[in-house]
Amino acid sequence: MATSSCKRQKCLSLENMNPCVKVMEYAVRGPLVIRAGEIEKELEQGVKKPFKSVLKANIGDCHAMGQVPITFIRQVLALISYTPLLDDPKFPEDVKRRAREILAGCRGGSVGSYTDSPGIEIIRKHVAEYIQRRDGGIPCDWQDVVLSAGASDGIKAVMKLLINEEGGKKPGVMVPIPQYPLYSATIAEFNMTLASYYLDEDKNWGLDIKELERAISEAKKTCNVRAIVVINPGNPTGQVLSRENIEEIIKFAYKEKLIIFADEVYQDNVYAEGSRFHSFKKVLMELGEPYNKMELASFMSASKGYMGECGLRGGYAEVINLDPNVKAMYLKSISAMLCPTVLGQAVMDCIVAPPKEGDPSYATWKKEKDSVLKSLNERAKMVANTFNSIPGIKCNTVQGAMYAFPQITLPAKAIEAAKAKGQAPDAYYAFELLERTGICIVPGSGFGQKPGTYHFRTTILPQTDKLKEMLESFKKFHTEFVKEHQ
Amino acid sequence: MATSSCKRQKCLSLENMNPCVKVMEYAVRGPLVIRAGEIEKELEQGVKKPFKSVLKANIGDCHAMGQVPITFIRQVLALISYTPLLDDPKFPEDVKRRAREILAGCRGGSVGSYTDSPGIEIIRKHVAEYIQRRDGGIPCDWQDVVLSAGASDGIKAVMKLLINEEGGKKPGVMVPIPQYPLYSATIAEFNMTLASYYLDEDKNWGLDIKELERAISEAKKTCNVRAIVVINPGNPTGQVLSRENIEEIIKFAYKEKLIIFADEVYQDNVYAEGSRFHSFKKVLMELGEPYNKMELASFMSASKGYMGECGLRGGYAEVINLDPNVKAMYLKSISAMLCPTVLGQAVMDCIVAPPKEGDPSYATWKKEKDSVLKSLNERAKMVANTFNSIPGIKCNTVQGAMYAFPQITLPAKAIEAAKAKGQAPDAYYAFELLERTGICIVPGSGFGQKPGTYHFRTTILPQTDKLKEMLESFKKFHTEFVKEHQ
Repeated sequence: MATSSCKRQKCLSLENMNPCVKVMEYAVRGPLVIRAGEIEKELEQGVKKPFKSVLKANIGDCHAMGQVPITFIRQVLALISYTPLLDDPKFPEDVKRRAREILAGCRGGSVGSYTDSPGIEIIRKHVAEYIQRRDGGIPCDWQDVVLSAGASDGIKAVMKLLINEEGGKKPGVMVPIPQYPLYSATIAEFNMTLASYYLDEDKNWGLDIKELERAISEAKKTCNVRAIVVINPGNPTGQVLSRENIEEIIKFAYKEKLIIFADEVYQDNVYAEGSRFHSFKKVLMELGEPYNKMELASFMSASKGYMGECGLRGGYAEVINLDPNVKAMYLKSISAMLCPTVLGQAVMDCIVAPPKEGDPSYATWKKEKDSVLKSLNERAKMVANTFNSIPGIKCNTVQGAMYAFPQITLPAKAIEAAKAKGQAPDAYYAFELLERTGICIVPGSGFGQKPGTYHFRTTILPQTDKLKEMLESFKKFHTEFVKEHQ
Repeated sequence: MATSSCKRQKCLSLENMNPCVKVMEYAVRGPLVIRAGEIEKELEQGVKKPFKSVLKANIGDCHAMGQVPITFIRQVLALISYTPLLDDPKFPEDVKRRAREILAGCRGGSVGSYTDSPGIEIIRKHVAEYIQRRDGGIPCDWQDVVLSAGASDGIKAVMKLLINEEGGKKPGVMVPIPQYPLYSATIAEFNMTLASYYLDEDKNWGLDIKELERAISEAKKTCNVRAIVVINPGNPTGQVLSRENIEEIIKFAYKEKLIIFADEVYQDNVYAEGSRFHSFKKVLMELGEPYNKMELASFMSASKGYMGECGLRGGYAEVINLDPNVKAMYLKSISAMLCPTVLGQAVMDCIVAPPKEGDPSYATWKKEKDSVLKSLNERAKMVANTFNSIPGIKCNTVQGAMYAFPQITLPAKAIEAAKAKGQAPDAYYAFELLERTGICIVPGSGFGQKPGTYHFRTTILPQTDKLKEMLESFKKFHTEFVKEHQ
């Protein structure tokens, strides 16, 4: 009988569980981060270390690193959560107006009601207006806008539509290497094939069409390539694509019949002189026929930009030119999850429709926004400059986003030591850094890199003083590490 | 060349998209609800109808139907969103204390930071204390508690682990019929097999072990049955399982090596005299060896109960006795989604650790909670009694949850008329009800029912006056409908 065997073994084991979940990896929250958490607990318990605290430069978690929330967003949240505050004279009139407008879009006037699955209509309309302004007047249909619980949720909901084996081949998705590991994790979970293309480190992580051609002909041998992901501004690489480069990518996607996934969550984070954010939507529309009929999904988040509201889980997807039948299926498929968090939707509303000149909240909002972006700009330069001053580290300009992805030259002895420990060389380096300095970064192997090269990703998010300290400590570590492994 | 074909057809079509998404259905937000939305717009535009507004009795959306939010929850939300309010003398001390405690668990003291993927430690600990209190002291390990964005999110995250074809057979999940369509939708999306067992309408939707035996031996012919879902209190059926019944189910699951999914989101919603909520965890632990080693996942939500905070997306899963390796995979798999909304986590904290006697907020909280539950209790009785007073409608006692699932006897002519329209007979009935009265219910076919029987689900959520009106209007409709189809 089956009965007795349950005593000895579990119903669900590594052997009989979902094999796709087993292989998926998510380096931004991987073993290094788990170890960082343990070290934090050890420090709390009084264990002596050569440092006082752990510095989490592994994740783009703005407020965790001391960035201050935008007052307008938080005031609106307070008022819609606890409506008696609508009568409190402490709050500016535009905050109250906004809160009333959002509440009018909620059933029963409460943020505790479910919304339509793609989000509250008035917020979707505000998003559409924002996109239209951003793209110099190119129309945006609010019914193409679907709100989500952060960009990750939105990306997975669209990518899910591609799951379909044809002719014995899995669907493939072209993903930049280095990439943001949400993509590799999602592709693994959905049992699809990751078709990687390399970004060109020597051209500041630009995207070379020849490399796309090479990558797709390689991928076609094993899978049906259905889509291409482009992250712009780049994560983990910090580049901002030129308009010409985007045009080339669109033409390539057209030729190869690929749906474009434009991860544009860092659209507010552009620092380098001469760099500018161009949305895929705008370029595609301006290219005209036949490109302006292509299927494109663009993603935005409340977690990045100048607001950095990661914990509130706001985001949206603009999905254009879908076959109407497919769109109906897409909308049906998100309905089983009911709706994204209403408070996250409200945050997105404040982001796409911030206070205007003349509004009582405008001056504060402008000051707060500019201050965050100015400081990020300075830190972007400081990080690249400092790493480039360290022998054996080489860092591209951080044109945008919130990360640097420097290359490190590791001594042969370090590579051997890593091998002996069964670790990737850059993971070995990152673990050593963590144990000796408390600095938590993510090894390049978590994002992918050209074989034989080693990198790491660090955020530029620690506040200026902390960042200076971190970079000094990093420099000291690197010098010692190289000396020891000479 | 492939190029030209893209002009004529989309990259993604019904033919080449995810076939699992195509077949999934989610009746609670299905075509009837879409039509209800259209009618609302028509009314706004001044179209004349025999009714003034649409009454959405299709979904357990408490605040949308006029239920008032719990003050304590909303005050805490306001304070953690906009921290200057911590100094406002208007707010009670226990609200401030709670807000400070939650903020202390947030990185950088901001709800805008990511939390650990399973949620904020202090909230997980509060949940564990709540479960332990609820279960009369049976221990709960906070590390078995995983917070989620509503129960749906939590259920999908655990069910995902079961996806694995073995010996050419798909994994199967036993699900009650009638069922909550999240289960059928998720099982379809995950390409698993729904192994249905019927609840016994004649025994107030009780669960008969002989029927479980029949269902599993039937299911084993086509799939590997891995899990059993039990919804208690029942949705859409409103029954509350007896302790003896739960014991039998546990023993059955043990014998068949099934993981138990206990959907216990209505644990606060028990109305009938003599009915009491017994958690699966408690019964399983009290049964002792070998049952207390079984894998069990229990789900709770912020959306139901007396709080009804559907839009804020709070929930948790308690998952016990998992193989440690499987648990590591489970935690890894949720990490790619970063974390559930922090404000939803905070709502869950207020629910599991409400004000205590002596706290400044206690009296108000108690009054609000009791008032909601008392009114739901009255409405539960009113709904069942009224339906039973209508010839051709038969309704079981609503012992718990928020729904009635009455059986309707449809005249042969109505069944023919439905057939002619290509509709299920109960869908035809529901559409007629909607068009003539504005009342939106969900046909029984959306939840499953014994062949040849017809039902519908209505919530008991309209406030008492509205509910009376609705039931009168329903009675009039039903009488006319039967007469017309005689």
